[in-house]
Amino acid sequence: MPLLVVGSVAFDSIHTPHGEVEEVVGGSATYFSIAASWFTPVRVVAVVGEDFSEEHFGIFRQRPIDSQGIERVPGRTFRWKGKYVGDMNQAQTLDTQLNVFAEFLPKIPPAYRDSDFLFLGNIDPVLQLKVRQAFPALRASALDTMNYWIQGMPAELAKVLATVDILVINETEARMLSGHQNLKTAARQIQKLGPRTLVVKRGEYGATLFTQHSTFAMPGLLLDEVHDPTGAGDTFAGGFMGYLAQTGDLSEPNLRRAAVYGSVMGSFAVEKFGLQRLLQLAPGEIEARYRELKSLSQFDV
Amino acid sequence: MPLLVVGSVAFDSIHTPHGEVEEVVGGSATYFSIAASWFTPVRVVAVVGEDFSEEHFGIFRQRPIDSQGIERVPGRTFRWKGKYVGDMNQAQTLDTQLNVFAEFLPKIPPAYRDSDFLFLGNIDPVLQLKVRQAFPALRASALDTMNYWIQGMPAELAKVLATVDILVINETEARMLSGHQNLKTAARQIQKLGPRTLVVKRGEYGATLFTQHSTFAMPGLLLDEVHDPTGAGDTFAGGFMGYLAQTGDLSEPNLRRAAVYGSVMGSFAVEKFGLQRLLQLAPGEIEARYRELKSLSQFDV
Repeated sequence: MPLLVVGSVAFDSIHTPHGEVEEVVGGSATYFSIAASWFTPVRVVAVVGEDFSEEHFGIFRQRPIDSQGIERVPGRTFRWKGKYVGDMNQAQTLDTQLNVFAEFLPKIPPAYRDSDFLFLGNIDPVLQLKVRQAFPALRASALDTMNYWIQGMPAELAKVLATVDILVINETEARMLSGHQNLKTAARQIQKLGPRTLVVKRGEYGATLFTQHSTFAMPGLLLDEVHDPTGAGDTFAGGFMGYLAQTGDLSEPNLRRAAVYGSVMGSFAVEKFGLQRLLQLAPGEIEARYRELKSLSQFDV
Repeated sequence: MPLLVVGSVAFDSIHTPHGEVEEVVGGSATYFSIAASWFTPVRVVAVVGEDFSEEHFGIFRQRPIDSQGIERVPGRTFRWKGKYVGDMNQAQTLDTQLNVFAEFLPKIPPAYRDSDFLFLGNIDPVLQLKVRQAFPALRASALDTMNYWIQGMPAELAKVLATVDILVINETEARMLSGHQNLKTAARQIQKLGPRTLVVKRGEYGATLFTQHSTFAMPGLLLDEVHDPTGAGDTFAGGFMGYLAQTGDLSEPNLRRAAVYGSVMGSFAVEKFGLQRLLQLAPGEIEARYRELKSLSQFDV
């Protein structure tokens, strides 16, 4: 079933202990759509500047991704520069140039109207709400956000939260949003704000899925080397939503499987810089890593 | 099969956001033995002072724990005072009085000689090695240690590490001991030092078990409230070793089950102050929580 994502497309400059890259294509909608495209056709709504070339668009076109919703406007594309040190759990932002992203007004192409699944990437909650309201008959809607909106626009965020089925968020943000340190309490509190399903990303420790009826916790895969954590969270969300859209199944067991696919995709993302690894996946690699995670977490009663 | 632990018995004074207690019985050998006693008979080698009364010994005697190896000597018992704030992941030590523990020389009662399983609690590695050498024909030996010995006595620690089957250690210590930030690399490095099996405790995130043939990662149980984290690591080790000694089975699937029982016991320990919860377990509670962890981490292929 068609999956639509609205979010950012950016040029990232990234420095980690394993190397550095300059102005590679990144952004939440990019990582999300590439990851989800391994499961289902994806449609993207975003904005780029005149410096975003046909070659750059080619990244989306090599995958089953409809990029007609990536609007190209006068000006420069969003740029982000970051550095990871030590255990690489947290990026240090060195520079942010919003450029055309500062005036982003999502425009939804008519061909996107029949989308069944919607992911509202981490953008201004006022824009998230506008996009959400344009799709009254979705199978499922999901949202990501961050500390900047949680602290800066709590009322606007509350409005859009009340309209979505799923919140995909990291652990620190879940605690900040709920005002509770205990993760179980935090999740129950957030569920009262709207989303019945909550996926809490916990970095190398895996993820926890809270539904109305149960809780599912999965460990993180143990990786040989993390080269670049950029985009791992959006990639997780792409795998999660991509699998849900592919199967059209929102049952508890399938939400669990989707979370595992999210983690699998996130584990690929960090193995190389930028999108490199996500664009290079060979047939069977995703399933093999899914089974690896199954065997990693298997025990008998 | 009989399980022997050597470690500390102490009076703990603990302050957490949920309350405080003064001079309650604690120490690594105490938490370990109480937890393990739910699975198998336990024998304890430790030292206490004259202020350790018959009433205090009663804590061990209410469980199937042989405490004849807890030597009572002139002087005061080891005292520790600590405080937990915020997310309670790390204790702030306010005061340590080693007292009689400073001169601890483990003495093994003849009745303990036929022990099949041995746990060397977190004490001076020179003493750990002496105890280890007194048991040439064990089914399995395990060891705990801490940053103090890793940094202060690396050569002595290496000697005892080379003699044990299992290392139970926390994540930060595993990284410190190996000199590797990546957990998988750290584990493979530590296995080269001696212990073929490594259990890495990751606090609220669960634990990871590295054997020669596979890796097992389990999430942490999500608790309603953590009242006092003191002793959680020793309690984990007690559940882990207690189950191994009860079953006498060192196969891969059973090592995984043992790690789950360790986590289950640790989850009880933190629910109340000191030993309270571990001494109050009702029949069936351990099995129920084991099944809870199974259902928490269950997903289909």
